Amino acid sequence: MAQRGGTATPVTDAERDRQELDATASAGKAPRTDRGRRTLRALLDAAAAEFGEKGFHEGSISGITRRAGVALGSFYTYFDSKDAIFRALVRDMSDQVRDHVAPALRAAPDQIAAERAGLLGFLEFVRGHKEIYRIIDESEFVDPASFRAHYATTAERIEQRLKAAAGRGEIRADVSDVHAWAVMGMNVFLGLRYGVWDEDRTPDAVADTVADMLRTGLAPR
Amino acid sequence: MAQRGGTATPVTDAERDRQELDATASAGKAPRTDRGRRTLRALLDAAAAEFGEKGFHEGSISGITRRAGVALGSFYTYFDSKDAIFRALVRDMSDQVRDHVAPALRAAPDQIAAERAGLLGFLEFVRGHKEIYRIIDESEFVDPASFRAHYATTAERIEQRLKAAAGRGEIRADVSDVHAWAVMGMNVFLGLRYGVWDEDRTPDAVADTVADMLRTGLAPR
Repeated sequence: MAQRGGTATPVTDAERDRQELDATASAGKAPRTDRGRRTLRALLDAAAAEFGEKGFHEGSISGITRRAGVALGSFYTYFDSKDAIFRALVRDMSDQVRDHVAPALRAAPDQIAAERAGLLGFLEFVRGHKEIYRIIDESEFVDPASFRAHYATTAERIEQRLKAAAGRGEIRADVSDVHAWAVMGMNVFLGLRYGVWDEDRTPDAVADTVADMLRTGLAPR
Repeated sequence: MAQRGGTATPVTDAERDRQELDATASAGKAPRTDRGRRTLRALLDAAAAEFGEKGFHEGSISGITRRAGVALGSFYTYFDSKDAIFRALVRDMSDQVRDHVAPALRAAPDQIAAERAGLLGFLEFVRGHKEIYRIIDESEFVDPASFRAHYATTAERIEQRLKAAAGRGEIRADVSDVHAWAVMGMNVFLGLRYGVWDEDRTPDAVADTVADMLRTGLAPR
């Protein structure tokens, strides 16, 4: 079966993950050892918990280091400020969502199955990381550039995979950025409703409904 | 042509608008005259400008009364606090969007045309009221109950009109809350992208693309 969504190999993915993690640190503060990377990872996870629970303004650096189980000085080894780790966290969550759904996207037999798998994976991720909505949404006010980058990047990725599928004849030839933003918007609000607010429908049921709508809505003409 | 989306008459709409405006005032502070209603309306419009430009925390009651051209005391004739007018504003904007798109929804010859008209009207409204996104989005942090009510109410309204259309055989019989949240999510993100961020596509072009996708995606099976 042809790989979907790019030609990345597992080795390249791991290397990319490492580079992306290193890039979350403030300028000149990238970790140089795997131990440093583990500390950086622990700080980002602690920041997700701290900001997810308290919000940006009430959240604190000492709250983050306490949750991460590291000394206050370790924070400044990797980050310049509370703003800096918040900005890094938005990018990290964006990357985490992408990485969580990527294998299912690649393994799907066709693009509608891929979109179904992507939404399913997203709903499951959100149920396990409900803080992601509060953090991404608060970035609109704390760091508008991060907010914009998160959605622009996500929409761009969806547009690329839809256009690749159109090129293979799997979906309609005229897919554009409008379809990509429509798909992203659906997924974001379905995640809010069936991932964060209430679990009264299973992720599979929600993904089935959307895939069934997209199968005809995006069918080749 | 049968009226779509309810049986409201113009008289009832006007009366409802008046009741809804009155209900935005704090408890016991509803206006008792049309002049009072005009002041209340001016305060809400000024609050949209003030909070849209400065955000909730930087926005002030004196900034609102200055923009509205009324004395500070007039603010307290209708509202108890900055929190109270912010909460009222979210509800008012939610009502304004509904009222702006309602005539086009009712006039459309079928439900796909109605959804197209609804999105078109929403995109046009957003271009003229770009502050709506910042205000609704900030309500997630300033007043979570208003944020939730805005989206729950909007989705419920979409679900009702989709189910009514299914009952008329215009769209698939199995439409549910999932379809309603999907449609709302699309519209919200298309409004952000093509209404607030950039006007590189016309509202008509965006609405055409979505209607074309929904026509088959929601077609009767």
